[in-house]
Amino acid sequence: MNYGIESIFKSYLEPREVYTGGKNIPASNKKIYKLSSNENPLGASPKAIAALKTAAEQVTVYPDQTDIRLREALVMDFNGQLAADQFICANGGSEIIDMLLRAFINEGDEVIYSNPSFLPYSVFSRWYGANPFDIPLLKPNYDLDVEGILNAITNKTKVIFLTSPNNPTGTYIPKDVLEGFLNGIPKNIIIVFDEVYRHFADAEDYVTALPYVKTGHNIIAINSFSKTYGLAGQRIGYCYTTAKIANYIRQIHKPFLLPITSIEAAIGALNDELFVEKTVKTIHAGRKYLMYEFEKLGITYWPTQGNFFIIDPPIPEFDFTDRLMKDGIMVRPVSQFGALGKVRITIGDQESNEALVHALKKIKPHT
Amino acid sequence: MNYGIESIFKSYLEPREVYTGGKNIPASNKKIYKLSSNENPLGASPKAIAALKTAAEQVTVYPDQTDIRLREALVMDFNGQLAADQFICANGGSEIIDMLLRAFINEGDEVIYSNPSFLPYSVFSRWYGANPFDIPLLKPNYDLDVEGILNAITNKTKVIFLTSPNNPTGTYIPKDVLEGFLNGIPKNIIIVFDEVYRHFADAEDYVTALPYVKTGHNIIAINSFSKTYGLAGQRIGYCYTTAKIANYIRQIHKPFLLPITSIEAAIGALNDELFVEKTVKTIHAGRKYLMYEFEKLGITYWPTQGNFFIIDPPIPEFDFTDRLMKDGIMVRPVSQFGALGKVRITIGDQESNEALVHALKKIKPHT
Repeated sequence: MNYGIESIFKSYLEPREVYTGGKNIPASNKKIYKLSSNENPLGASPKAIAALKTAAEQVTVYPDQTDIRLREALVMDFNGQLAADQFICANGGSEIIDMLLRAFINEGDEVIYSNPSFLPYSVFSRWYGANPFDIPLLKPNYDLDVEGILNAITNKTKVIFLTSPNNPTGTYIPKDVLEGFLNGIPKNIIIVFDEVYRHFADAEDYVTALPYVKTGHNIIAINSFSKTYGLAGQRIGYCYTTAKIANYIRQIHKPFLLPITSIEAAIGALNDELFVEKTVKTIHAGRKYLMYEFEKLGITYWPTQGNFFIIDPPIPEFDFTDRLMKDGIMVRPVSQFGALGKVRITIGDQESNEALVHALKKIKPHT
Repeated sequence: MNYGIESIFKSYLEPREVYTGGKNIPASNKKIYKLSSNENPLGASPKAIAALKTAAEQVTVYPDQTDIRLREALVMDFNGQLAADQFICANGGSEIIDMLLRAFINEGDEVIYSNPSFLPYSVFSRWYGANPFDIPLLKPNYDLDVEGILNAITNKTKVIFLTSPNNPTGTYIPKDVLEGFLNGIPKNIIIVFDEVYRHFADAEDYVTALPYVKTGHNIIAINSFSKTYGLAGQRIGYCYTTAKIANYIRQIHKPFLLPITSIEAAIGALNDELFVEKTVKTIHAGRKYLMYEFEKLGITYWPTQGNFFIIDPPIPEFDFTDRLMKDGIMVRPVSQFGALGKVRITIGDQESNEALVHALKKIKPHT
């Protein structure tokens, strides 16, 4: 029977490009170094895991109706600089992105993003009928094209995505560039500032969105428990923004949105400052080690503020990833992100980083 | 600073009625019988809990990119009567409802539901600019008003919600009524058939949406792991429908939507048939016991196909719930669901049910 239901399908939800993440570890007896998904080489915060297991005993009962307990823990984590009603928590940073697009986008609206970037910005925007415009980062250093973005703004522009540190390039938006940008844009546009890698940034002129949220700019800062806290598998993210914007978006925050295991794991993670410190130290040490080795090997890489590098592989990208895989090392080609021919490598612990360097040494450039 | 961002707020997302679930257990030393949220008196499937705890060790790594492993487990659970691409899994049955509304609703579309019913049907519909219409169940037995719904359909009607067994009334839609309805409605309307309490139904003419999905009707059947499987706190639900509709909605299914703990707990639960059997037996025994006692006490109740009853309390609803609370028994007033002055009582294990009856005996009707 054909009941003709496609007559009510939305044209902009026709099957098209779908975001696919990094691969899972293949079944194998060999030791695998997964340097493909920017996960935490130290695992997860032990306090988070302990809290999660305790919560596992309570899953029969409905969880907290709202995310208020987690938001209050975030207020503490931000040393009281923001109020609880400025946070929204969800099942991953990507759910926050989805939710804010739902709240703001009408069919035909415009969204601006800058490739190479996280693919969901454009994919999710299309779900709500938006037209996403790519104003690419400027080569060779992947700088934000502030003028290009300002010129692309029309009266249909609703959302602009900025990312710092940026995935997959590892680059960041310096303070003066961000401030120039914020002063240049109209006041009825939402700036989404994706700072999920913020803990790894150490450049002197790196800034998060915090000071600009505090002064009332229309910025939504995306954050995640997947990176620094090592909870990628549990899917927990949050944003902070002005109370006005947060309370508006909160209208579409479902009751019982977060599993009790997520609430407890996240609160546990926020109470484990030592783990965050150890994670950041490990990434900074690995970053330094890998830059030194890349230079010795003559591999072109981009300086990074994240827990990953992009490099120009010495042989074509898929040959390169296949060769590394033979040595048990998973890395990720990122053409799909708009970084043609480049490969992203997550910074691991010292053992993983050395295994990577050992494998790289065996790869000779095509001549 | 006021940057005037409210100029881009959507008028239909102005703060209004918000769904609030049942209360959590208050802190107390007294034994509390929580008969307010239709949770499982036996707890959660032990296999589910064990799987969840094992998964807790793996949360550092991103989970399965899609829900395919869980969908394959569901194919087994349905004895191969449906294919994997007919299922969609999400963080709770309510996320499925949200997702299908997003996929189908444009501003100004119409949605039909029948009070007393689950509040999110109307609340979530408004999030996408729909106009929800209540065609109430017919008193005194809360029968579906088939003719009323058919008359309310316009060319803007996109979605009709049916629920069987219905929350909070416990009533159901008999097979012949459902079939008459399905034959009467236009073929470009989505029927959402919420059957999250289906395991508890034992009426001879009770049907799920399964046969009608198999014959190609435009039905989406909502299911949950919160009730029979006792996993309310972990937030897992799914739907099954035609492949055409499922593949359309799947366009907005985010990668990594489900935590690894949810995927593993749900697969564990599906492998625990014994637990489902025990749960259903417990509810059926409790149902029988409570009907007997309600009749002895002269309490007006509605025959139920769910794991709960609604009753007419012998004293005003909030006095009634306060009095029961003094005896450690939590029940839920359901005026908010459209059942004015009524109270919903979850069927518990024998100990809880006896505690309830004991407390009821102490309450004298106002005269």
